[in-house]
Amino acid sequence: MISSAKKEVQITVAQCVAMGMKHVVVSPGSRNAPMIIALNQHPEIETIVIPDERSAAFYALGMAQQLNAPVGILCTSGSAALNYYPAIAEAFYQLVPLIVFTADRPKSWVNQGDGQTIDQDQVFKNHIRYSITIPESTAENFEWVLSRELSTAFHHANGNVKGPVHINLPFSEPLYQQAEATVTETDFKIIEVLEPNNSLSNSQKQKLEKIWSQSNKKMIICGQLNPDIALLTELKALAADPSVAILVENTSNLVDFGFIHCIDRTLNSIQKEEIEAFSPDLLITIGGAVVSKRIKTFLRNANINHHWKIGFDFLFMDTYQSMTQSIPVKPSEFIHEITHFKRESDSTFGARWKQKDFLIQEKAQDFFQQNKAYGDLTVFHTVLDYIPETSHLHMANSSVVRYCQLFDPIRSIQYWCNRGTSGIDGSTSTAAGAALIKSETWHTLITGDVSFFYDSNALWNKVLPPNLRIFMINNAGGGIFKIIPGPNTTNELDDFFVFKHDFSAEHICKGFKVDYFKAENIESIESQMEEFYTFEEDGRAKLMEIFTPSELNHEQLDAFFKEIRL
Amino acid sequence: MISSAKKEVQITVAQCVAMGMKHVVVSPGSRNAPMIIALNQHPEIETIVIPDERSAAFYALGMAQQLNAPVGILCTSGSAALNYYPAIAEAFYQLVPLIVFTADRPKSWVNQGDGQTIDQDQVFKNHIRYSITIPESTAENFEWVLSRELSTAFHHANGNVKGPVHINLPFSEPLYQQAEATVTETDFKIIEVLEPNNSLSNSQKQKLEKIWSQSNKKMIICGQLNPDIALLTELKALAADPSVAILVENTSNLVDFGFIHCIDRTLNSIQKEEIEAFSPDLLITIGGAVVSKRIKTFLRNANINHHWKIGFDFLFMDTYQSMTQSIPVKPSEFIHEITHFKRESDSTFGARWKQKDFLIQEKAQDFFQQNKAYGDLTVFHTVLDYIPETSHLHMANSSVVRYCQLFDPIRSIQYWCNRGTSGIDGSTSTAAGAALIKSETWHTLITGDVSFFYDSNALWNKVLPPNLRIFMINNAGGGIFKIIPGPNTTNELDDFFVFKHDFSAEHICKGFKVDYFKAENIESIESQMEEFYTFEEDGRAKLMEIFTPSELNHEQLDAFFKEIRL
Repeated sequence: MISSAKKEVQITVAQCVAMGMKHVVVSPGSRNAPMIIALNQHPEIETIVIPDERSAAFYALGMAQQLNAPVGILCTSGSAALNYYPAIAEAFYQLVPLIVFTADRPKSWVNQGDGQTIDQDQVFKNHIRYSITIPESTAENFEWVLSRELSTAFHHANGNVKGPVHINLPFSEPLYQQAEATVTETDFKIIEVLEPNNSLSNSQKQKLEKIWSQSNKKMIICGQLNPDIALLTELKALAADPSVAILVENTSNLVDFGFIHCIDRTLNSIQKEEIEAFSPDLLITIGGAVVSKRIKTFLRNANINHHWKIGFDFLFMDTYQSMTQSIPVKPSEFIHEITHFKRESDSTFGARWKQKDFLIQEKAQDFFQQNKAYGDLTVFHTVLDYIPETSHLHMANSSVVRYCQLFDPIRSIQYWCNRGTSGIDGSTSTAAGAALIKSETWHTLITGDVSFFYDSNALWNKVLPPNLRIFMINNAGGGIFKIIPGPNTTNELDDFFVFKHDFSAEHICKGFKVDYFKAENIESIESQMEEFYTFEEDGRAKLMEIFTPSELNHEQLDAFFKEIRL
Repeated sequence: MISSAKKEVQITVAQCVAMGMKHVVVSPGSRNAPMIIALNQHPEIETIVIPDERSAAFYALGMAQQLNAPVGILCTSGSAALNYYPAIAEAFYQLVPLIVFTADRPKSWVNQGDGQTIDQDQVFKNHIRYSITIPESTAENFEWVLSRELSTAFHHANGNVKGPVHINLPFSEPLYQQAEATVTETDFKIIEVLEPNNSLSNSQKQKLEKIWSQSNKKMIICGQLNPDIALLTELKALAADPSVAILVENTSNLVDFGFIHCIDRTLNSIQKEEIEAFSPDLLITIGGAVVSKRIKTFLRNANINHHWKIGFDFLFMDTYQSMTQSIPVKPSEFIHEITHFKRESDSTFGARWKQKDFLIQEKAQDFFQQNKAYGDLTVFHTVLDYIPETSHLHMANSSVVRYCQLFDPIRSIQYWCNRGTSGIDGSTSTAAGAALIKSETWHTLITGDVSFFYDSNALWNKVLPPNLRIFMINNAGGGIFKIIPGPNTTNELDDFFVFKHDFSAEHICKGFKVDYFKAENIESIESQMEEFYTFEEDGRAKLMEIFTPSELNHEQLDAFFKEIRL
């Protein structure tokens, strides 16, 4: 096998492969040539090329989410690395194992007036799990240090708490020299951390059991989660207990008849005098970000006696200002424990929530049967109906993910959204990266016009996969700003908040060889669906731009919330 | 005057205006609403809206360069801020006063699971001159702290050493409340730093004079500089001394018959046995980055006895590994001192350089008269001929800025290039920002296909100015990688280094309402020039895409360097 002539590169690549990294997204450059050569020639590494580093890092994020395994990104030195930062922050909060390789000039040349040389040490400091600059290969104990540091980095990327790590690689010239790879598994030394299985002691369990059995109003909220069948099974069992309300969002990928799926829709119907009856005294939270702002406000104002946060990450993230116990154990195992707790309460707290949810579900169905007006809401209703079964749905941030929360989730579909930082900067790239990896199923992205244009470089590459479909809902600006209260009271509404415009995605699609579909009413959306979801092995992604009347969207949403109120 | 109801916002904006900030590039958002309202309503502030923060920051960079004054950028909280980082690093190394305003959630909510909340404190630490998080308005001595900190930030942005500063603004809800502005100049307190005029003592001067008069081979190299007539005048006077060689690049904006302008072209002709005769014993450097890699290598290998670095910034930036004195005084004043130093040497070191330069200049002219083959080099020769007089030329990084260095600079033209980090990420946005501010002259950007696509969001806005012209030389990939030695010895050449592609800018231009011109030979370039440079008051930028044969460019450049060798 040919590789870079640099020994440290051969070791780095061989050890990363041995530690489970099989995919690297590469952005072209020169300083990173040694790694490019070594990665591309390695038979166990799949490389894909994305020229814009901002997009490249989001591709890798999407890939790592699907693989549930570390994915590398590699760029040249200088500001290239800084373009990785938005996706790194997203991976940090969303706990995605991104291995960030940045080529660097030799450290002695930093701030000495050489081109593409910045201070890369610790440059992602606020949002990275671990950072190393590989010492130059002349340093004392070089190979031991390199292997040990790579072991450390992978532990921080892919241990119990996952996330991005930064491996900075200073390279001296020559950069392009190649040689037969001589590294074998004995040339590096992987230090494994045997992460123990966390389980609570009996006295800890007894303490929790006492609280559980004495609480009448028990609520479990699940935020963003990868699909987890064990957890789903446990929660379904628990849902049989009428004192327990289980609230999930579509990004939790937990669907069951016994859960409350559309939190905002249900909260919308809770009257002032009912607040106390619907507020939990024991709150249990699982998973990452929760989209609903309403539930956050609702719970921050509630009198919660106990809040248990389950999971390994961000132990002190006290989203509802009520945390009493942070419990770093596996969620499915913890819920399993709970199902064996004594049930003393005869409360119907959960049943009360569920009942309200049922009634509103019916009301919502009625609403869509009676309201055929064309707007964002009815477009979502239509589009969601056509998402293929057992496929993946990627939701862009801002209005899209919020609209999607208003509809009951589809059981066979996996839901994804960048809720770590909730940025609009990489939705398309993340969806495309996911589609690349899970090429056997459809991936659908629903995005808005602002998110789409922001990340249009997601299309600027040669790997855009044929199983990706993009619905771009063009309401001529950031629709969210017409929905949230506040912006419309200012003179700045159209220019500074909405960014009202009349650009279309049509030309960008043409430029990047993406089949373009256009729709301006429900009929044209529906009539094109069959062709839109036709698969072409050698094709690229397809995009349907759906123009909606920006003036009416707000009214339609208001009417919906008004009519489904009980 | 209406403003945000938040007192700290009123003070911040009023004080920044009083300290000289009149322009702010705003990216839409919600958390930044208080600043948006206050800035937009302020009669002395001009706001422009650019939705992609990465592009927005480069627009501001271009504006600040032209204004030679602080320019603000403002974004919402979360990953939006991280998209500013590439331009911030560029401003840091290029010494551009960028005032970076990032809205933030209240500090108590960082890492607590709220949307669009990251750890913004010190997030640009490696490449920022000063960072503050404005304390919340309930803090002790709030107004005193705020005013003092803003004074400090502006000193670091716009003092003797200029650069980017970060002002992080945590805002609690409500965000959109407005009120009549009540802040007057007595509500804040500006602390001025009276920066003393740095001048050398007599004994320091005597020491330098002694070295100067004893040095036979004196070389002055000017890197990137804003146009500086005082410095030009002094250098012209000094150029009359035949012992002094003055080397400049077009980015130094210093043009004179007495200077060597095309460093690489001249170095190319220095034979091995001449190296000693052409190497300086005293080197004086002025200004920022130098593009020529050849001169760096040449000087790092030379026996330099003394190297004086003139200027306030990066006092220990020892680019040629020979620095003996760092002299933080104004370059024009220092050169003025030198012109009064005793001239003891009868060396003709400078004349020797100049003579070689003359001869090569003629050879180069002959080359272009004899070689009419179509390729990147002849395209540059043609295009540069058509740049309007007294206008601005913006050069993208990578091959473009290097090609442009091969041609004698045009006296009436100002040359710009992002040589701080030499990134490809913001060339178009920077040029557009410059054109926005200096709307009375033409601004021309020459860029390559990779740089252009990378920063295509420079066109995604409503302010793209009508006095901007873009030549996009499309050689189907990163042409630089076919020119530098190394990549062509690998299997990765086309995919990983060049990023060979067949995308065109035509559709992107259409999508963003930019008039598109296409050329595939010298005749079609020339025949369209008149129409291309037709000004339309209400128009937007125009772009000419020039397709060149990627296979031949390398050969043409080789032939050029071979034929102009003496």
